Amino acid sequence: MEQQGIKPYVIGLDLGGTNSVFGIVDARGEIKATTAIKTGGYTKVEDYVKASIEALQPIIEQVGGIDKIKAMGIGAPNGNYYNGTIEFAPNLPWAHDGVVPLAKLFSDQLNGIPVALTNDANAAALGEMVYGVARGMKNFIVITLGTGVGSGIVVNGQLLYGHDGFAGELGHVIMVRGAEGRSCGCGRTGCLEAYCSATGVARTARELLAKTDRPSLLRDMNPDDITSLDVSIAAGKGDELAKEIYEFTGKMLGEACADFTAFSSPEAYIFFGGMVKAGDLIMEPIKKAYEASVMNIFKGKAQFLVSGLDGASAAVLGASAIGWEI
Amino acid sequence: MEQQGIKPYVIGLDLGGTNSVFGIVDARGEIKATTAIKTGGYTKVEDYVKASIEALQPIIEQVGGIDKIKAMGIGAPNGNYYNGTIEFAPNLPWAHDGVVPLAKLFSDQLNGIPVALTNDANAAALGEMVYGVARGMKNFIVITLGTGVGSGIVVNGQLLYGHDGFAGELGHVIMVRGAEGRSCGCGRTGCLEAYCSATGVARTARELLAKTDRPSLLRDMNPDDITSLDVSIAAGKGDELAKEIYEFTGKMLGEACADFTAFSSPEAYIFFGGMVKAGDLIMEPIKKAYEASVMNIFKGKAQFLVSGLDGASAAVLGASAIGWEI
Repeated sequence: MEQQGIKPYVIGLDLGGTNSVFGIVDARGEIKATTAIKTGGYTKVEDYVKASIEALQPIIEQVGGIDKIKAMGIGAPNGNYYNGTIEFAPNLPWAHDGVVPLAKLFSDQLNGIPVALTNDANAAALGEMVYGVARGMKNFIVITLGTGVGSGIVVNGQLLYGHDGFAGELGHVIMVRGAEGRSCGCGRTGCLEAYCSATGVARTARELLAKTDRPSLLRDMNPDDITSLDVSIAAGKGDELAKEIYEFTGKMLGEACADFTAFSSPEAYIFFGGMVKAGDLIMEPIKKAYEASVMNIFKGKAQFLVSGLDGASAAVLGASAIGWEI
Repeated sequence: MEQQGIKPYVIGLDLGGTNSVFGIVDARGEIKATTAIKTGGYTKVEDYVKASIEALQPIIEQVGGIDKIKAMGIGAPNGNYYNGTIEFAPNLPWAHDGVVPLAKLFSDQLNGIPVALTNDANAAALGEMVYGVARGMKNFIVITLGTGVGSGIVVNGQLLYGHDGFAGELGHVIMVRGAEGRSCGCGRTGCLEAYCSATGVARTARELLAKTDRPSLLRDMNPDDITSLDVSIAAGKGDELAKEIYEFTGKMLGEACADFTAFSSPEAYIFFGGMVKAGDLIMEPIKKAYEASVMNIFKGKAQFLVSGLDGASAAVLGASAIGWEI
């Protein structure tokens, strides 16, 4: 039985380039109801919000109406926590050329409940802290390995936003300086993301296949079609070249984490995203390179964990976690 | 006229390898009285504390007695804020082979006033926040350029200690990976400190002199005797090779800061230490390399400042600032 006046739920919105997935979530991380719309197809943000509210209405009623909702949290690309805006998000037709006050627009349509937003990786970090393997931790770093490499950094129990709201871009520290660095989507060269994202892993595969004539299951494919999933499948079948790709990727991630530890000395690194499904194939090289690279005073202190959030609902849970933090 | 019961002063202790300098400081950063003892010459920490208290007694009386003292702050090598200890400090004969509870030992001898300690660079960061150019800032990084390269990182208005108290070792991020990295005092290779500390600058000078036959005032010296001060003096006289040494050093610092910004996006970098006396010779290359290297979203946002604390008293002020934070 719920008490009068208690607001037991938050709305989480995982705002991706293709789909916008909404969930109504309770304090234990149970998703009570979900709905979704396409993210694109709207040129004006007002139309996107209108379609969202129409989709939300029935599931809000399902849990007892808007009075049962404490807040809403949004995980979105280029989300700025400080002012609740999405800023120049290249993949969102209604937010690609300006600053969109998305949090306020949702709040206005939802009886004025508080709405907060942040980027996807920060949402993942909050999700781990509220529902996942980081419960009780005050200093940890979530690294998301997907199309890009993202990060959410928690220090003293708080997400690190920096003075402008954009801190935690660890996919864009430089791992290979100078002319030999790979070009990165950010316009620079040598970034961690250019090597350790899904596209980076596929690129490593193509480079390694071209550079050697060693046998590999990956040679059965058109090089341009190889994805990180193919590398994962081949490695799972014991393919030595595919394993070497993960060793290369893990070594770079481990060395990067050694530098991150010199910065914030977290008690754990938590890896999140499709590539983590490769399990020890990627986690063991990360740990090995980390312990070999990190300063003596930090050796053996940090845990290396895999996200504790269910993949399908992790992003919505992460977004909803922002709502509990308001 | 001071009110009854008000405690207007803190004791600051700048605990260096050679000297231990004490100051009694008011809330405006005015040093009311100072004294000093040699740090070494004691094999037991109890004897070091006893000698310190004997030296402190007269200056405590000078400001009206221990009842006027709110707290004591200590800036010390290998200082751990969380438990008030100095841990395995290689240069301190009474703390080189174990964990010394220095904060408690002082508190016990000073009527139980609170005593906190942290490492020198963190003390410098607190000093800038309380008395210096970082007043009012909530996100900034102090980089100390001395015998080593140290750092104090402030996020959300708090010093970043990490889960073990040792966060903020930015002198030991890896700038040159692989076999060609210079060896560093920490036992690894390629650290920022190996290039941008005073000894790193002197080493750059020797390398550049050996590699070329370009004329330079530095050629009048025995290469092994060259210090960063000599480089500074030569650069001040317009020596092109000496200027190039600063450009190399500044470029590496600027590129390192670009990575730090991807981590915590501070509003300012504050440089502290002897090398900063070279002024624009070092600061301009830092800024130029930073703006060229940093991600687009961060360009033009960070300030590059020189410490606002008077060199002679900066370390004592920094240490005293820890006392105000308790």
